[in-house]
Amino acid sequence: MTVRMLVNGEPAEQISALDRGLAYGDGLFESIRLVGAVAPLWSRHMQRLGEGCERLRLPLPDAAQLWREALQATHDMPQSVLRITITRGVGERGYAAPATVRPTRVVAAFAPPRIAEEAHEFGVRVRLCDIRLAEQPLLAGIKHLNRLEQVMARAEWTDPAIAEGLLRDSHDRVISATMANLFALIDGVLLTPAVDRCGVAGVARAEVLSTCPQAKVGELSLDALLSATEVFLSSSVRGILPVQSVAGRLYEPGALTRQLQQHWRNLGFSMEQGG
Amino acid sequence: MTVRMLVNGEPAEQISALDRGLAYGDGLFESIRLVGAVAPLWSRHMQRLGEGCERLRLPLPDAAQLWREALQATHDMPQSVLRITITRGVGERGYAAPATVRPTRVVAAFAPPRIAEEAHEFGVRVRLCDIRLAEQPLLAGIKHLNRLEQVMARAEWTDPAIAEGLLRDSHDRVISATMANLFALIDGVLLTPAVDRCGVAGVARAEVLSTCPQAKVGELSLDALLSATEVFLSSSVRGILPVQSVAGRLYEPGALTRQLQQHWRNLGFSMEQGG
Repeated sequence: MTVRMLVNGEPAEQISALDRGLAYGDGLFESIRLVGAVAPLWSRHMQRLGEGCERLRLPLPDAAQLWREALQATHDMPQSVLRITITRGVGERGYAAPATVRPTRVVAAFAPPRIAEEAHEFGVRVRLCDIRLAEQPLLAGIKHLNRLEQVMARAEWTDPAIAEGLLRDSHDRVISATMANLFALIDGVLLTPAVDRCGVAGVARAEVLSTCPQAKVGELSLDALLSATEVFLSSSVRGILPVQSVAGRLYEPGALTRQLQQHWRNLGFSMEQGG
Repeated sequence: MTVRMLVNGEPAEQISALDRGLAYGDGLFESIRLVGAVAPLWSRHMQRLGEGCERLRLPLPDAAQLWREALQATHDMPQSVLRITITRGVGERGYAAPATVRPTRVVAAFAPPRIAEEAHEFGVRVRLCDIRLAEQPLLAGIKHLNRLEQVMARAEWTDPAIAEGLLRDSHDRVISATMANLFALIDGVLLTPAVDRCGVAGVARAEVLSTCPQAKVGELSLDALLSATEVFLSSSVRGILPVQSVAGRLYEPGALTRQLQQHWRNLGFSMEQGG
């Protein structure tokens, strides 16, 4: 695995073993798709990162500095996924934050995942996960480093033909996939689950909501999902992916899904959106 | 801060910035009190660590190797707190675990916290935290690295006269303190909250339960806690600490609390248990 990384602005591959990001997951991250030196959703990523910092009471990062480091890490890569990790830095043992916080900043450039052309054209298979997302309003929505639920969910299956797992909360509400948000067209209304009790407010989700101002945010039951005429996933890394099946129910990519895939191409994600 | 550390058995102060412990909090830890070269609760720590590894599907660590590294890290320290951190190691980007997992093992020796003699003699002040612990049975009980709730709870107060915060779940059930378990003597029965939906199954808690076979594990409401005749905290790092007050209600350390403090001294934690 070759990854180009900067730690606090310097080329490096390691962080302190006393970092609170490791000790407690005390921090945030963003996974950002770049096409060459362009990151079409950059400002949305910076907005969410800023909101996460406010929620966790972390110092606001310098977006201009992050962008310089993003360009440095992804230099010469025609396609890349940038992971920015911000933690509360090195700390003494114990949950109390140090009196003076010096955040740790990791900027790493990865090759993008390979997504089969068929996935964008015909859609992906989604399974129902057994794990239920716990409800924690104080952490919901932000992209923090406490991701064991997603790790446990992703460990539920190994079949490579299944692309994603559907996550529900303990009240049987559908929330999202393990690494993407979910939209369903039901009775002509585009709906995506609320993420104020659990789940992540995806950057691609925000772009879809902005593009479709008639879309609604609310509760989504599994029954309602199974009654939908179109279902798709939104991901800042993978774009707009039609859902081909959930728990045996088959869907066909519809006009709205195609329209949003076209919107993604128009944003500049030109090389990955088939269909 | 001077900390002696071993990373995968070698003296080192850093880990890979691609470690899944940092990326997702994908791992476990133990905080173990040593008196010289003796760790009275070592076997309980190893048992919980093993259970955590099974729950997270991590390879079981080699306890003999960990003990050798513990002695190396704490060499010449009359009192120490050892933190063992085990993660799923370096991984590609994404929640799926790598095909071959090579866990990362960090063994670090810290100076023990200073605990005023008065704390053991007269007890500590505990406040009610606003944050509610989320219920996730798949992660409850084990000491994993997803600790943002505890970080957020500890950030609720700065008054050094307050030693701890009381954590409840969303159903108003009392669960624990931020870094200790809690016991209450109610109508002559010793009770500690169940930790099968949230909370950590503390090693000191297990020692208390083993010492007091008549103790019960169950639900504890705030009203019941306020009606208790004795309340104390159990912590593998801090021992048995009487609770002096919760939310204005005052308690006096009672005979059972003193008996357990004596038990702690008998275990070999001789230098820290006043009263």
